Formats: sequence, C-alpha cells, structure tokens
Amino acid sequence: MKALQFTNGQVNIAEVPVPSRDDEALVRVLLSGICNTDLEIAKGYAGFEGTLGHEFVGVVEKAPTASGLEGRRVVGEINAGCGNCPLCRAKDPRHCLARTVLGIHGRDGAHAEFLSLPTENLVPVPDTVSNEQAVFIEPLAAAYGIYEQVPLAHHTRVAIIGDGKLGLLTALSYGATSSSCLLVGKHKEKLAIAEAAGVATCHLTELDAAAQRTFDVVVEASGSESGFATALDLVRPRGKIVLKSTFSGEPKWAASRVVVDEITIVGSRCGRFEPALKLLERGKLDLSPMISDEFRLADGVAAMGRAAEPGVLKVFLRP
Amino acid sequence: MKALQFTNGQVNIAEVPVPSRDDEALVRVLLSGICNTDLEIAKGYAGFEGTLGHEFVGVVEKAPTASGLEGRRVVGEINAGCGNCPLCRAKDPRHCLARTVLGIHGRDGAHAEFLSLPTENLVPVPDTVSNEQAVFIEPLAAAYGIYEQVPLAHHTRVAIIGDGKLGLLTALSYGATSSSCLLVGKHKEKLAIAEAAGVATCHLTELDAAAQRTFDVVVEASGSESGFATALDLVRPRGKIVLKSTFSGEPKWAASRVVVDEITIVGSRCGRFEPALKLLERGKLDLSPMISDEFRLADGVAAMGRAAEPGVLKVFLRP
Repeated sequence: MKALQFTNGQVNIAEVPVPSRDDEALVRVLLSGICNTDLEIAKGYAGFEGTLGHEFVGVVEKAPTASGLEGRRVVGEINAGCGNCPLCRAKDPRHCLARTVLGIHGRDGAHAEFLSLPTENLVPVPDTVSNEQAVFIEPLAAAYGIYEQVPLAHHTRVAIIGDGKLGLLTALSYGATSSSCLLVGKHKEKLAIAEAAGVATCHLTELDAAAQRTFDVVVEASGSESGFATALDLVRPRGKIVLKSTFSGEPKWAASRVVVDEITIVGSRCGRFEPALKLLERGKLDLSPMISDEFRLADGVAAMGRAAEPGVLKVFLRP
Repeated sequence: MKALQFTNGQVNIAEVPVPSRDDEALVRVLLSGICNTDLEIAKGYAGFEGTLGHEFVGVVEKAPTASGLEGRRVVGEINAGCGNCPLCRAKDPRHCLARTVLGIHGRDGAHAEFLSLPTENLVPVPDTVSNEQAVFIEPLAAAYGIYEQVPLAHHTRVAIIGDGKLGLLTALSYGATSSSCLLVGKHKEKLAIAEAAGVATCHLTELDAAAQRTFDVVVEASGSESGFATALDLVRPRGKIVLKSTFSGEPKWAASRVVVDEITIVGSRCGRFEPALKLLERGKLDLSPMISDEFRLADGVAAMGRAAEPGVLKVFLRP
C-alpha cells in the first residue's frame, strides 16, 4: 500500500506492507488531515521516522475480537498505552510512559491506505457527521480539551493567541459558549472565519495597551516564542496560560514575570473524543471554512508543501 | 541615617534623610537579612535604584493613627498596594498593579537605620520569637506560600530543587509535615542542615534515573536554568512545578515537554506572614543553622560580597 513517510530526513511516498497485527483493528483510511505536528516532525521534532499522520476517519476492515466494529466508520484516539500501568488501568493511556502514538511515536500513522490501532482506541462516527467533519475530531478534541484542565465559566475572560488551525478550532469550539472570548491573530482572512462564527477578534498589531494583564485565561495556540510573550502580556496576575502548541525548539521565556505575577502555565495536549464528537453532532459547528485544500495520497509530498504555505489551514489527503 | 543603596550601578553606603511620611509608620530596624533578590537587583534585575532590603524586624517609632503599634516589635509585608483597586480591596495588595515593594520597586528598603511602611503592612512579633528568627519571616512566608497555591497532602510526593536559602526554608517548613519530601542540591553541608531536621536529601549527581517523572510536585528554588530542567525531569506527567525563584535572565525551557506531558507550572512569589509566624511560634523550626554571618550596616557593601560567596546562606545586617 501507499504511505506518506518521513525517513532519512525526507518526506516521501513509499510502498509498504498493509499492517497485519492480530491484536489490533485494521482500518481503511477514508480521509486524513495534515497537522502542524506533521510539519514539525518533518523538521525533526520528536525524532519520529515512519508513516506520518494522526488525524483520520476510516472504516474498520478487520477487528480481532467480537468488538462489533467491523464495517463501522470510525475515528481513533492516537495514544496506545501499555494496558498495564496505573494510568492505562485508569483508562487514560494518553500519559502512559510506554505508549506509542499514531504517526508521532513508535507507531505508523494515518497518511496511508490502511492503519492499525487497538479496538479500544476506535470511536464510531454518527451518520450525521460527514467524513470532512469527522477528520477534525482529533484536533477539535485537543482544542476542547482545555475544559478538562482549566475551569472556564461563561464570564471567564479568555484570549486565544494564534489564528492557525488550533487557535481557530479553539475559538470556534469555545467562543460559541462564552460571553468574553477574544481571538488574537495576524491574518485578516483567518480572523474572519472566527468572526463569521460570532467570536470577537483582534489583529495582533491592534491590541490595545488597556488589554494588557486583564485576561483570566490565555490560550497560546500560535506555537511561537512571540506568541508566548503575547500571552504573558495579556494574562492578569494570578491568571492562567494554557499552552496548546508544541514547539520544535527551546524558546526563551520571561520566567521572572511568571513568578512575580504568580501566573500558572498549564500544558495541554490531547483531549477526549466523546465531547468533541457531541459538539459536531449538534451541528452548530461549521468547520468547512477551515478546509484549504485536498490532495490524493499519492501526491502527499506536494500536500505537505502546500500545508506549510503561509495562510493555509487544513489540507486533506484522500487515499 | 545610613542606608545600603544600589545607585548608578553600584552598591554603596549612603547618608540619607530619615523617612518622614505622615501616612505611614516609621520603623527603627533592629536586624535585616540579605536575600538573593538583593544580589539580583545589584546585577540589574527589576531596574530598582534606592535602599536595598526587604527582610527585617524592627520597632515602630511612630505610627500615624491610633494603631496601637508604637513601641511594638514588628515584621512587615513588603507589598504596599494602592488601596483602591479590586485586589487591594480584597486585602491582597501583593498583585496590585500600582503597588510599591519594599527595597524592590518604588520604595526604599530595609537595609537602613529606619524604614517606612503603611501600618496595615506591619505584623507584631510574639515575644517567644527572637529577632534572629523573626527576620526570616518574609522568606519563610514565601516558602510556605506554596500551600496557598498547590494542594499538598501528607502523601504528596514533593521534590525541592536547590539547597540555597529558599530551598532549605521550603524543605524545613514543608518537610517536617510530609512523609514524602526530597531536597535535591549540590552542597553536602547545606543538605546536612535539612537532614538534621529529618528531611530526605539527595545530591544532584546521585539522582536515580528511577526518580525521573515520579514526583507529583517539584518546587524549583535554585533560580537556575538547569534547576528548571531538573524539575522537568522529575515531575510526573500531569504533575506540577512550583516556580519560586526569580531569574535575572530569560532562560530557555523545554516548552514541548510541558505540553506533551501536560505539566502545570505555578509561579509563586510571596506568602502570607501569619501562617509563617505561627510556624515559628510553635518553636519546632530551628533556623539558626541557616545563619552564615552578620555585619554592621556600615559594612553593608562587604556583607553583600559575603552573601554572594558560594556556600553562604543568610547574612544579617545590624544597624
């Protein structure tokens, strides 16, 4: 089968065997999405080699047990735990120290014709949710995962830094339920997507000095050192910064400001799929403005290039 | 009067007028302590110029109202708020944006014969607490302030990084009540102080690889970039790092580790004096091993040099 791989420092389309693990489900990929993490891996982040991709919707071709999943359309949680440690036993393999992660760590990913995952990672997709919406589940769950870690009331003053994919998903999923949410970005056309969904926005260059140190919670979703600096500017003393983006480097940070103003920084990575699926099922979230382009899997190298272009949001790969 | 000042990039002993604010109390300083923050200010941190020092015990010479404080032996909270903002009205001037801070920001400090503070900042010292113990109140409150921000149960696995003054105070004040606290440092003779008080210790070079990613809470009190890296090594996924030290530079940090392991970083600066005073009143905390030296105020420049020497803990100034 075809697979978009990162090997020997190069992104390439390879012919590889179809996965054949008896203890896992075999999923035929219908659609996959290119994430910034894929682009970071192609720059060396996480030291991963193999098939890229962790955002997908597919159909279960074969499942090892009477899981009832064969033939079902599914999305998949990307962390596969060891199954034995306290975290796995508590049904949270996301932090299992021995975990593999689809297309990121020790496990081939979703930019391929087929992928393999444990059955417990798979979540059936309701019929009312299209493939083009379902493929957003993983990043949407990550955006929505903020709720798991930081208490957010209707009146909590929230700023989101970064109008890329993650920032927009956070704004769309959170902004709709909040009375006080501001998306800060650099791209008029991206900010317009959030505005159309009723979220207040502000261009970075037009940030009012009066906004400084006023936000209860700031979500850093730009993945840049300057984005973190902006987050520090906006958060109030004793406020919280939620760090959503992974960085490939080691940024500098104003640690003294964090201490003096007793700011809390909350690292936040993955989220649970169920609440994100419910959000899509309700039908109030229109993600179509976030789709920039679609390529055949065979043209995956070009698709990665396209996804890395400035201003581009989600790029799909169709096997 | 004499005052130890930092002006024009130099630490010096100056002859300055006795403070004379009608709206504040005049305190005759009995003893003051040199803090690392004083040493950082002398390197340019916080951009402060004026009289240094914020750890003191003194006697109220004059108070503006019928406060009942005249003649009382007192210690003093170092943040003086505007009195009008929501934080000040909620009795927490520590984060008032218009605050002045004794010997740190906009207000002359304690390494002098006299100082001036609002009466509401002053806390009488019980007779059973000596001057030499009382002068530790500010840093002890800072160390003990962790309790205000992070829930710590008897069984919470806590590591403290740094065997300097702040790390030792944290270990002495917290370790006595915990069943699982480890102080990590580089100096055998400093670690021995914590050991004598019943706190488990470990030399940095002897940290077991098995200790990595196992601590629920790690307190970073070394003030160094490498200390923060060690804290990241020791904290478990979804654990907390309490950042106690101010840095004069902008350290690099492994932001991706924070995101991937969903770590929370809690900046922590000052603490409330009352619980720290109660801790001293109980008489179970012996801080005398932490006193390295004492100088006359007139020899303050030499005292600052002494405090900056490797291995030196608290240095007192006596007017």
